[in-house]
Amino acid sequence: MFFSKSFIPILKNNPSEAKIKSHQLMLRVGMIKQSSAGIYSWLPLGFKVMKKIEQIVREEQDRVGVQEILMPTIQSSEIWKESGRYEDYGEEMLRIKDRQNREMLYGPTNEELVTEIFRSSFKSYKSLPQLLYHIQWKFRDELRPRFGIMRCREFYMKDAYSFDLTDDDAIFSYNKFFLSYLKTFKRLNLSAIPMAADTGPIGGNLSHEFIILADTGESKIYTDKRIFDVDSSKTILDKESLGVLRKQYEKFYSVTDEKFNKDEFEKSVAEEYRVNTKGIEVGHIFYFGDKYSKPMNAAVDFNGKKEFVKMGSYGIGVSRLVGAIIEAKYNDTDGIMKWPMSVTPYDCAIIPMINKNDKSNLEKSIKVHEFLKSKNIETIIDDTDENISAKIKKFNLIGIPYQLIIGSKSEGNLYEFKEVDGETQKLKVEDICSQIIKAKQN
Amino acid sequence: MFFSKSFIPILKNNPSEAKIKSHQLMLRVGMIKQSSAGIYSWLPLGFKVMKKIEQIVREEQDRVGVQEILMPTIQSSEIWKESGRYEDYGEEMLRIKDRQNREMLYGPTNEELVTEIFRSSFKSYKSLPQLLYHIQWKFRDELRPRFGIMRCREFYMKDAYSFDLTDDDAIFSYNKFFLSYLKTFKRLNLSAIPMAADTGPIGGNLSHEFIILADTGESKIYTDKRIFDVDSSKTILDKESLGVLRKQYEKFYSVTDEKFNKDEFEKSVAEEYRVNTKGIEVGHIFYFGDKYSKPMNAAVDFNGKKEFVKMGSYGIGVSRLVGAIIEAKYNDTDGIMKWPMSVTPYDCAIIPMINKNDKSNLEKSIKVHEFLKSKNIETIIDDTDENISAKIKKFNLIGIPYQLIIGSKSEGNLYEFKEVDGETQKLKVEDICSQIIKAKQN
Repeated sequence: MFFSKSFIPILKNNPSEAKIKSHQLMLRVGMIKQSSAGIYSWLPLGFKVMKKIEQIVREEQDRVGVQEILMPTIQSSEIWKESGRYEDYGEEMLRIKDRQNREMLYGPTNEELVTEIFRSSFKSYKSLPQLLYHIQWKFRDELRPRFGIMRCREFYMKDAYSFDLTDDDAIFSYNKFFLSYLKTFKRLNLSAIPMAADTGPIGGNLSHEFIILADTGESKIYTDKRIFDVDSSKTILDKESLGVLRKQYEKFYSVTDEKFNKDEFEKSVAEEYRVNTKGIEVGHIFYFGDKYSKPMNAAVDFNGKKEFVKMGSYGIGVSRLVGAIIEAKYNDTDGIMKWPMSVTPYDCAIIPMINKNDKSNLEKSIKVHEFLKSKNIETIIDDTDENISAKIKKFNLIGIPYQLIIGSKSEGNLYEFKEVDGETQKLKVEDICSQIIKAKQN
Repeated sequence: MFFSKSFIPILKNNPSEAKIKSHQLMLRVGMIKQSSAGIYSWLPLGFKVMKKIEQIVREEQDRVGVQEILMPTIQSSEIWKESGRYEDYGEEMLRIKDRQNREMLYGPTNEELVTEIFRSSFKSYKSLPQLLYHIQWKFRDELRPRFGIMRCREFYMKDAYSFDLTDDDAIFSYNKFFLSYLKTFKRLNLSAIPMAADTGPIGGNLSHEFIILADTGESKIYTDKRIFDVDSSKTILDKESLGVLRKQYEKFYSVTDEKFNKDEFEKSVAEEYRVNTKGIEVGHIFYFGDKYSKPMNAAVDFNGKKEFVKMGSYGIGVSRLVGAIIEAKYNDTDGIMKWPMSVTPYDCAIIPMINKNDKSNLEKSIKVHEFLKSKNIETIIDDTDENISAKIKKFNLIGIPYQLIIGSKSEGNLYEFKEVDGETQKLKVEDICSQIIKAKQN
């Protein structure tokens, strides 16, 4: 891909309306474009990152045996009246009247709809457990949308729902998601910690938020720094193993401000281990038993007895994660962003110095691009006529993890090569290739 | 995947509300579930097919150099007022007031929004051409939604848009999509023919619909049967080669009823070649020059002169294609559906005969499943306790192209194996494997 032909509209300066660094960067390098208050279009650079995040989320859902479905964005108000939440949701719910004057709404969440799907599909306990997820656009009519895609109105989420016969089975399902979330965030190169959390309008009495540390986070968090060392790599999809993992986390005090209690914090965590900082919520899981299945009559037959199914729900903000990764990885003092290899829009930027009368560096770039492509390495060639330092500065912001510079300092078959935040090395293209492949495998 | 644990709610009979065979089949085998009038949820079986179609559409867009973006579902009315279409669209547009009383709408199409994105991103002709696409949910508030996902309200579409400096360049872009559409439908195992069509509310004076023949189609079509023999396999992405392809198609009379003229038809097509039948629209491409760029002031600088960009738009109904493929491939007299290998939810159904006291066939099934999985062949095992003929009947409807039956007639290492609409063979698992792999490659 040539930079001059790609749809990457770069701004010269940080847009004044953006207050946090992810919002600034995403507008600056043309990842998104606002179309109206709290509603954004995703341009190719932003879209590529979001799609890669989506795919990792999907793979980790599939791995724990969750089946993918897709519910629509527009729902009927009727099921929300059944659960009793139609009024509760207030003005954040985007309410719509269709041409027949029916009351519809743009789904802010899907507990009601998925319960309706379950109850009309299965009647026997033999079909349990059922774990379902979907990845779909949702809408919350925020009074003051802000921080770009971090607190916007139309956003992209993975929602999952579990249906079980007993509380015990349901906790097993809950714990599968607990593990799956840890694995998902790890693949995104984020240290997310699970924290006991309030359940809010979803309901229930068991809930964890997954939080990554970031100064710009909206949640205050209180925890024990040893929680970062809990190792889930050996946990398997087995009731006992998952139970052990949950217990390992619960040994450490770890809450958001809604659940914070100063005395308890100070009693449970020795001063040297206390962490009191801010974080960004990237996932949230809930267990709420029969809160929806009972009013909506979602039950199965169990040896002649009617049992309301026990449900949980499990969310990951896919579009929000794009911003959260920037908050965690962007050094805005030095103007350097570095995408994790697993979600970067391109693996390597090829940056040739181009003179009007000498296209030889551009030709070299194309050859290097072809070679790397043959090894499944995605590159973008900056074929514009900007000077080399402007190009490098631009790619420092775009955040592609590797830069290959073809300029006056290229000697023979050695190229200047660097990690975006690292030192320049002089390497042969084969060595560049193996370095990138190694990084992709981690 | 075990059938008993998968979310595939089968109905015993055809649902009475469904009038056409795709609608009947999709409800019957649990591919979709209606959530309100003209709005559907996609259950795992339907979702898998739609995702595979989406991926083929995406790959064929990428192949002709179109860049993927994603525009939101909810748009501001302001840009529609600029183009003058806010009133034109009438009641099919789902109009929404948000909590601040702003006039919003659920996008029925995206010419305005993409024009706004272009005009605020690029100012120089050097950035042209730009070809952009997105795959997103759209909404048309049909007065009478019907035929399941064939004429519903919330539907999934690929829309692409081209931006060029001159009419000549724009026709080159148009022709790239023309070729890309032929290749897309071919990979879906559909014979789609391009037909001169009216432009309707999109506007412009050049337009083709891509139509597949089906008795249940809503479009009447008039064409020359020799049009099916036009060969695009040697056409390359070059102005001249694409022009030649267009001319080959234009040699044959081929229109929908809106453009039909009896005298012309009879004059141009000898009686033996006349085709007068019904079809389903699966794609539609438009060239409309500066219809949107002029009122919305989307222009580039070309050597000091302001030029309004020349635009086209290009749609494929991704969700509709699921139904269109069923209309084309489902033999409802015999109760046999057969998905093309490129989009089938599973490659092969493993159907064991299971007795209460003898699970040996189930164990064999799992072994065969593991072997086929190691060769990248996706299977589903019917582990239910239905009798074997009920199982086969069910899988005839589900439409997985191959069935491997493990029953009383299995001898030694030979299995009963058949295409869903073919004769039973007795084969070793290795031979079954190579037969499926061969079919996947076609």
